[in-house]
Amino acid sequence: MSEKNIQVLLARRPTGEVLESDFEIVSSEVPPIQKGQFLVRNHYLSLDPYMRGRMSDAPSYAQPVALGDVMVGGTVGEVVASEHAAFKPGDMVVGALGWQLYGVSDGTGMTKITERDIPLSAYLGVLGMPGVTAYVGLMDIGAPQAGETVVVSAASGAVGSVVGQLAKIHGCRVVGIAGGQEKCRYVTDELGMDACLDYKAGRLGEDLDRAAPQGIDIYFENVGGPTFDTVLGRMNPFGRIPVCGMISQYNALEPYGVKNFRSVLMNRLKVQGFIVSDHLARWPTALKALGQGVREGRIKYRESIAQGLENAPAAFIGLLAGKNFGKQLVKLI
Amino acid sequence: MSEKNIQVLLARRPTGEVLESDFEIVSSEVPPIQKGQFLVRNHYLSLDPYMRGRMSDAPSYAQPVALGDVMVGGTVGEVVASEHAAFKPGDMVVGALGWQLYGVSDGTGMTKITERDIPLSAYLGVLGMPGVTAYVGLMDIGAPQAGETVVVSAASGAVGSVVGQLAKIHGCRVVGIAGGQEKCRYVTDELGMDACLDYKAGRLGEDLDRAAPQGIDIYFENVGGPTFDTVLGRMNPFGRIPVCGMISQYNALEPYGVKNFRSVLMNRLKVQGFIVSDHLARWPTALKALGQGVREGRIKYRESIAQGLENAPAAFIGLLAGKNFGKQLVKLI
Repeated sequence: MSEKNIQVLLARRPTGEVLESDFEIVSSEVPPIQKGQFLVRNHYLSLDPYMRGRMSDAPSYAQPVALGDVMVGGTVGEVVASEHAAFKPGDMVVGALGWQLYGVSDGTGMTKITERDIPLSAYLGVLGMPGVTAYVGLMDIGAPQAGETVVVSAASGAVGSVVGQLAKIHGCRVVGIAGGQEKCRYVTDELGMDACLDYKAGRLGEDLDRAAPQGIDIYFENVGGPTFDTVLGRMNPFGRIPVCGMISQYNALEPYGVKNFRSVLMNRLKVQGFIVSDHLARWPTALKALGQGVREGRIKYRESIAQGLENAPAAFIGLLAGKNFGKQLVKLI
Repeated sequence: MSEKNIQVLLARRPTGEVLESDFEIVSSEVPPIQKGQFLVRNHYLSLDPYMRGRMSDAPSYAQPVALGDVMVGGTVGEVVASEHAAFKPGDMVVGALGWQLYGVSDGTGMTKITERDIPLSAYLGVLGMPGVTAYVGLMDIGAPQAGETVVVSAASGAVGSVVGQLAKIHGCRVVGIAGGQEKCRYVTDELGMDACLDYKAGRLGEDLDRAAPQGIDIYFENVGGPTFDTVLGRMNPFGRIPVCGMISQYNALEPYGVKNFRSVLMNRLKVQGFIVSDHLARWPTALKALGQGVREGRIKYRESIAQGLENAPAAFIGLLAGKNFGKQLVKLI
């Protein structure tokens, strides 16, 4: 194997905005494998908002990436060498081998992709962590009932787009929130949500009053900050708020102060944070439902694909600023 | 019956602090009863923080009291005349006849007190709405496990005192928060909580770090505002926060902005508002457990008793300022 491995390391911990100089791109030998291991040539790297948390050493649910270590990240790729009984060269696998061309695994957390009628990249999106995140948050915490009104922020994104389409499948009225007219058109015209509000228009409260005249029963939270506050004040009694992310706050130096917290009491809301990795038992059920939705054309998805690992830092910075349109990936091959 | 009825009416809706002039005290004839009704001479009126919400016409879970109407409130008293088959003169009853000496009922929401070994006033506190509120919030939303750390605010109050004692019965480490050294001493020395922190000392964060070195698994929220924020930042993963009240915010003209909301996501917290009247099915179970605790001396309670209905407005204003010490009542006889 003549190709070198290329890796993106965490070089510095960002303060506020992430900079390209927070990363270092290095070249190294393709790593050797030992008995019980296999080598994967990654085809796609997934970029996800949670990675911002791993760059920081503030207390969080996961260990930070150590300075000088390869950035963590989900990957799909092909097994190219194996000393492992269950994985053979030619197998396509999905796992978390990080921001690099080649990764070595002992099989922990790796899944073979056996159904190849859906493109490989989907296993990092709608049929991967973001899709299952949407399913678990909406179905298990949101518990949608037909006729209810569901609002989802980052509605054109990897998670939000699945939330909105699942909620439609379950008979809800769905209002997306997204940044800009182009994303909003996609959310209504392609994804089939009932309305989409452009938070950049600066009148989200009024727009919500119009688009959700019966109030809001479920708010699937991806962004935090003022959007959260605005929706919080419009929840119906016994509403549910699965809290999946707060992308508006990840680069913030000072946290936003939530003023409508009183609504939690007045409306007897359930506000619940969750992380999909706490719900591993739900993956098979979720993937079955999502795969069926994709095959039937009832769950659509869209990807922003950066070309080449050297462009991963810029693509990640763009993701945090909402410049992506759909699931952000990096093509590595 | 020569005595007149005395009633406290809502005269004005307060802006911010409640004033005595927001109430009007009037005298009227004792009301007549019709077939299917009975007349109650109230012995005690309960004063509770939720009443502040009923004085306001801001959107809430309950209808506001109309201007000129009798203030709502829980009462215990004696049936003195009856045209109702199930209630006889001499029966002691608990219900919600409002801020007045006499009330007429058709039996809706009225319960006969048959066990007289516990003082009548307890049916407005530990064996009434506040006690059941504590039980439902702690047991059904908090779901305490032995060895967990529970923090409860307003820990010497009608609800908080029961929460803390129930949590001790269930094997938890319990840290109360109260206003002033005298209340704190009562919380630890009489109620048996493991520690009590005086929020007025102005160093709640440090004090919590010392008193709850393993972090906080359950926070029973009665006060809102900066106390909530301070506790929120110290919750353990998978912590639960039953939100029962926000007394610090009821008179506030501008709501406090909650800065540590990020903890909901990072720690996968469940934050849930509740109102005891949504959980009527739990009353018998709760009252059985609470009655047993009181009879065994494992649940103690304390009362602040104002004398005479004319002192109810001042006592209520004092309650909102934390001047009461234990369950606030007004003695009417």
